[in-house]
Amino acid sequence: MDPLIADLLDGQHRALARTITRIENRSPGYRELVSQLHAHTGDADVIGITGSPGAGKSTLVDKLAATYREAGLTVGVIAIDPASPFTGGAVLGDRIRMASNVGDMDVFFRSMSARGTLGGLSTATTDAVKALDAFGKDKVIIETVGAGQNEVDIVRTADTVVVLVPPGSGDDVQMLKAGILEIADLFVVNKADLEGADRTVQELREMLQLRDGRVEVGGHHGFAETTVDVSDGADAESPGSEDADADAPAQEPWDPPIVETVADRGEGIDDLVAAMDDHRAHLVESGQLESKARTRYAEEIRTLIREDVRGLLAEEIEARGGLDERVDAVLRRETDPYTVAEEVLEPLADCVAERRDRRE
Amino acid sequence: MDPLIADLLDGQHRALARTITRIENRSPGYRELVSQLHAHTGDADVIGITGSPGAGKSTLVDKLAATYREAGLTVGVIAIDPASPFTGGAVLGDRIRMASNVGDMDVFFRSMSARGTLGGLSTATTDAVKALDAFGKDKVIIETVGAGQNEVDIVRTADTVVVLVPPGSGDDVQMLKAGILEIADLFVVNKADLEGADRTVQELREMLQLRDGRVEVGGHHGFAETTVDVSDGADAESPGSEDADADAPAQEPWDPPIVETVADRGEGIDDLVAAMDDHRAHLVESGQLESKARTRYAEEIRTLIREDVRGLLAEEIEARGGLDERVDAVLRRETDPYTVAEEVLEPLADCVAERRDRRE
Repeated sequence: MDPLIADLLDGQHRALARTITRIENRSPGYRELVSQLHAHTGDADVIGITGSPGAGKSTLVDKLAATYREAGLTVGVIAIDPASPFTGGAVLGDRIRMASNVGDMDVFFRSMSARGTLGGLSTATTDAVKALDAFGKDKVIIETVGAGQNEVDIVRTADTVVVLVPPGSGDDVQMLKAGILEIADLFVVNKADLEGADRTVQELREMLQLRDGRVEVGGHHGFAETTVDVSDGADAESPGSEDADADAPAQEPWDPPIVETVADRGEGIDDLVAAMDDHRAHLVESGQLESKARTRYAEEIRTLIREDVRGLLAEEIEARGGLDERVDAVLRRETDPYTVAEEVLEPLADCVAERRDRRE
Repeated sequence: MDPLIADLLDGQHRALARTITRIENRSPGYRELVSQLHAHTGDADVIGITGSPGAGKSTLVDKLAATYREAGLTVGVIAIDPASPFTGGAVLGDRIRMASNVGDMDVFFRSMSARGTLGGLSTATTDAVKALDAFGKDKVIIETVGAGQNEVDIVRTADTVVVLVPPGSGDDVQMLKAGILEIADLFVVNKADLEGADRTVQELREMLQLRDGRVEVGGHHGFAETTVDVSDGADAESPGSEDADADAPAQEPWDPPIVETVADRGEGIDDLVAAMDDHRAHLVESGQLESKARTRYAEEIRTLIREDVRGLLAEEIEARGGLDERVDAVLRRETDPYTVAEEVLEPLADCVAERRDRRE
């Protein structure tokens, strides 16, 4: 075992920090580290918290962490920096984090930047969660700005997904349609003391009711497979359905509750903790905790394979002198992208076919 | 040559429609069709129009098409259905499209759904644009809801990208930060007669000024390479910069204009057409039209290779009995995702290495 991992498992926060740095930078040998971590994972509750900028995520996460600490639980937080190069950096860098937990090393806070490759960020987050899990953190919180598909993909790897909605014009509730609604296990209307909060709660409730009429088939979003699908056939081919396990027993449906909080005054935090505990219990009882883990690992393996193949292909293209000449030929209309792609891939496809023939 | 392509090149709209259907469904042989189309492409102006739901895209596209028709130009429109399974279908299906152009077959309208694989949709859109280009349409308009990264990726393949902003609370301008701002060559504040329109224009202007202080390095977004980069070093590694051609001559910067329109009354449409023509002229004069095409073809080839490899790997995994047993082993902590990914890829990597050795 790598001495760094030994130190991490021994409870040294410095080793934890260094491990995550290696993961984030994809330093040589980081894969070996993550491989070694895996055997020690599986005990942490992984919570994903997402919401638009200004929804009050950082304050909420801060209060949540404090509440868990008071209950004697250890906490790790991974905050994902937004992807845009124009906003990147400043958002998390400038804010004073975890003010109420300063000096409490049992809340381990780490921000990861979305500046690198985005596929890579998703993998890096998954790996960093493993480091916190293996370290022994009871609660691991992934915090993202739910603006883009990549952030949504990251936060949905959590066991319990909390979507934060600021009270207001209703625009935010409309935005939820764009992918976040589907992954929410709980909604939080934060700043519930502000004008418009009641309306936001009401709009959310209506949207959930609307959705329940045309819900996805498949259990991993927390919806029952027994729910009648009254939508047109096309919805059955929605992205989520491929993960559905057709052999799974019929499950109790999970109705995402809407919790109202005023995070900066600590109001509603206990309700939120209770609601998240309920969801966790639901996952365990329904067997979804395991089926979710299964789906997640399969997806993790596929992502790693994809990334590796990408690297393999980049090397192969490089070894053949790059694509420049071929792109020029495409520009001159002497060839076309499909033909070029086929030419590049032919040897690889031949290889695979040959090996398969030999096996058979 | 495929008789379908011959008919398409002969100007038969039915052949055009059938070709796009084959492209959308990825019917057997569709690649051959697209390969054959490529030689006949390169003459169309490709315009991307994006904006949030309710910004008035469909009306604007309608009026644009009518204006081009009056000028004797032919038009093709590809409208991309939003990705969410919960909103999919209804948005475009329910609306009455191209009302002012009914019966005018020289405006060819086609909507494509985002229900299938998303990578696939991007490729299908590119291919459908080729069909319209080869057919001889002078203007090809790609219309998307700019909500997700995938839609942004699709619309950015256009020569000229128009971002539609509805007047209002300013929330929409804030949202632009999340990736759309960077790709806009023109902004349109539609419904400019509504309250708040002036404020929206003002906010957009301020945002553009703010950006110009910390602009990306690289010419393909329409910004000058000579612009002083006052941002921190990290921004130089932003996603856009990899496309920058270091050897390109210093280019005149392009300042995205803000055009005000009231599309349903046809106001401002001529200004918009003029602004788009200006942008086109700028692309031609600066040499960016070609450098953009080069970047686009390279990206197209890479995307095709990725998709093909994904298919190849799926077959390979299938041939080895799937991932289920391995996932079970990961769940039991007997192995881990990195190790599994390596095992699956090893034969492929070996193949590539062997072939390379033989070549050398």
